[in-house]
Amino acid sequence: MTTSTLAVRYTSARTLDTAPTESSPPGPGEVELAPAFVGICGTDLHIFHGDMDARVRTPAVLGHEMSGRIVRVGPDVEGWRPGNAVTVMPLRWDDTCPACRAGHRHICQHLDFIGIDSPGAMQQRWTVPASTLVRLPESVPLDRAALVEPTAVAVHDVGRARVQAGERVVVVGGGPVGILIALVARSAGADVRVVELSGHRRLLAEESGLTAWDPATDDVPELVREWTGDAGADVAFEVSGAAAGVDTAVEVLAVRGRLCLVAIHPRPRELNLHRFFWRELTLVGARLYDRADFERAVALVADGTVPADRLISKVVPLTEAPSAFEALEAGGDVMKILVDCSDAQGAIDEAQGAAV
Amino acid sequence: MTTSTLAVRYTSARTLDTAPTESSPPGPGEVELAPAFVGICGTDLHIFHGDMDARVRTPAVLGHEMSGRIVRVGPDVEGWRPGNAVTVMPLRWDDTCPACRAGHRHICQHLDFIGIDSPGAMQQRWTVPASTLVRLPESVPLDRAALVEPTAVAVHDVGRARVQAGERVVVVGGGPVGILIALVARSAGADVRVVELSGHRRLLAEESGLTAWDPATDDVPELVREWTGDAGADVAFEVSGAAAGVDTAVEVLAVRGRLCLVAIHPRPRELNLHRFFWRELTLVGARLYDRADFERAVALVADGTVPADRLISKVVPLTEAPSAFEALEAGGDVMKILVDCSDAQGAIDEAQGAAV
Repeated sequence: MTTSTLAVRYTSARTLDTAPTESSPPGPGEVELAPAFVGICGTDLHIFHGDMDARVRTPAVLGHEMSGRIVRVGPDVEGWRPGNAVTVMPLRWDDTCPACRAGHRHICQHLDFIGIDSPGAMQQRWTVPASTLVRLPESVPLDRAALVEPTAVAVHDVGRARVQAGERVVVVGGGPVGILIALVARSAGADVRVVELSGHRRLLAEESGLTAWDPATDDVPELVREWTGDAGADVAFEVSGAAAGVDTAVEVLAVRGRLCLVAIHPRPRELNLHRFFWRELTLVGARLYDRADFERAVALVADGTVPADRLISKVVPLTEAPSAFEALEAGGDVMKILVDCSDAQGAIDEAQGAAV
Repeated sequence: MTTSTLAVRYTSARTLDTAPTESSPPGPGEVELAPAFVGICGTDLHIFHGDMDARVRTPAVLGHEMSGRIVRVGPDVEGWRPGNAVTVMPLRWDDTCPACRAGHRHICQHLDFIGIDSPGAMQQRWTVPASTLVRLPESVPLDRAALVEPTAVAVHDVGRARVQAGERVVVVGGGPVGILIALVARSAGADVRVVELSGHRRLLAEESGLTAWDPATDDVPELVREWTGDAGADVAFEVSGAAAGVDTAVEVLAVRGRLCLVAIHPRPRELNLHRFFWRELTLVGARLYDRADFERAVALVADGTVPADRLISKVVPLTEAPSAFEALEAGGDVMKILVDCSDAQGAIDEAQGAAV
């Protein structure tokens, strides 16, 4: 049975529409989902800007931070049933490239990132490989569960930086991923400071029990020296994407400090290599996540370590997603916006009706 | 007894002289050495250029890559006798700064690097703390032993990069430290390629059994792809100090590859941070060495892993050191030049006479 559904599509720079699409029955190894909530991510905004036109085939259905329920299960799928609450780890690897063979499948040299390289979740039906599913406990409301994917990014980043209990950590950039990194690092026992220009985001950080500094008015390196007794921070996360953010992250680090590079810097940046030499610093690139990160992220959202309610600024219906992108583009007092794919419950009823 | 000796002194940019100095009896915890051979290092050339005038107090006696024998032993020194063959790990730390307290004394925040921050070895008598001495086996000729210090740098760098047996390693820059890194990495079981512009240095590398590529005519990234089956290298060492060297080192790395930054880049360099993110690369700064590195370096020079004879291009008497600096400055077919402080044997006789 083919289902007619609605999807948010990127068609060209700064242009999104909502258009009907058709969902066919899932093939072998696949499941059809009814996405419930889909977060708008910085990468989605990059696509919206037109910055990723070389990579994205239009019209492209966006969205990779999602929660939802299974509607239909294809042949040869074990362990999943219609109605199951799930999120998706949106990665397909080829299992044959040198990266995969070295055990780093999440950064496969031919990675298919679902929601960028193939159709994403911002639609009412979404067919994905069952291998991408991650189970959600029924206790987690689906809106909060849409934060599992960015939380998995944060878990991965904190792991790449090998943050230890008692370490002092500076997070440069207090957007959604920065705040999540700060919260995950704190839950690992670190003492954390967030550096963020936006007063709204600093307030949200403070409300989550974090200390936040304003790089426009605070002398961040001096504050770090005072805080650490002139030693410097053990770890810095660069999540701002800005040249000044890179400089701050390098400057605050202690001897043998680790800088975890999370933000995307499309063009080369000047880096103070002398300081890397002088203090024997380490720079670690971190991208995406693996399944263990995702499962840990589900637990952190479920147990409230991630105060998802506070981080969700707004929920808009699918039909209003295009204007939500424009609002995010304009900046302002916002953290995470979710798109409500709305008829998830109807879809479950339909699926369960079909299963009877 | 005060001894009159000769020293090589840096007085101002591009100006060295040889001048008499006086050596007083060693104080408590100190020893007086008769340096035998002192290598000229890239850092010495930087000082000679005038690039380090902000740090160096003139007149400055240069030299920190040395071998020699003990002449006089001060009070409260245990385990050392006149005549002992030694090299010096030229570091004095304060033991109180955050770096020392964290166990990284070799990069003490107030490090005294002997030969830069205080008088060096390019003289006929040199008084140093006994704590800096490293014993040399009598089987190692003293000229070869002058290569222990740069070999300790290489041992430290290979350790910082965590080179494992079977890994593929690219060394960008085939000067003395680059070649030593290549040799130390090979002795750790790695498969190594050296990238070097100078035909003379490539030839020396080949004569040491290493494969060397010319970045002016070879497509190094393509050669690495062929060599590694499209995976990329596990480790790259940036030893060139050039912007193009940094780019090459980043470009050749495999997913999760490690770039060990050895060369000094006084000014910030553009770095392809996107590739660090995309391939989850790591950049590791490496500076100097610790005592274990030094002792390992003695063993590698003693057992011939380091073909010191091949790497020593020339030995000049102390009085000709100034012109040797000028020759090195001019480039040409040269690897390591040693300064022969010449009367080491006379000094031993004198010391042994005094001890009778």
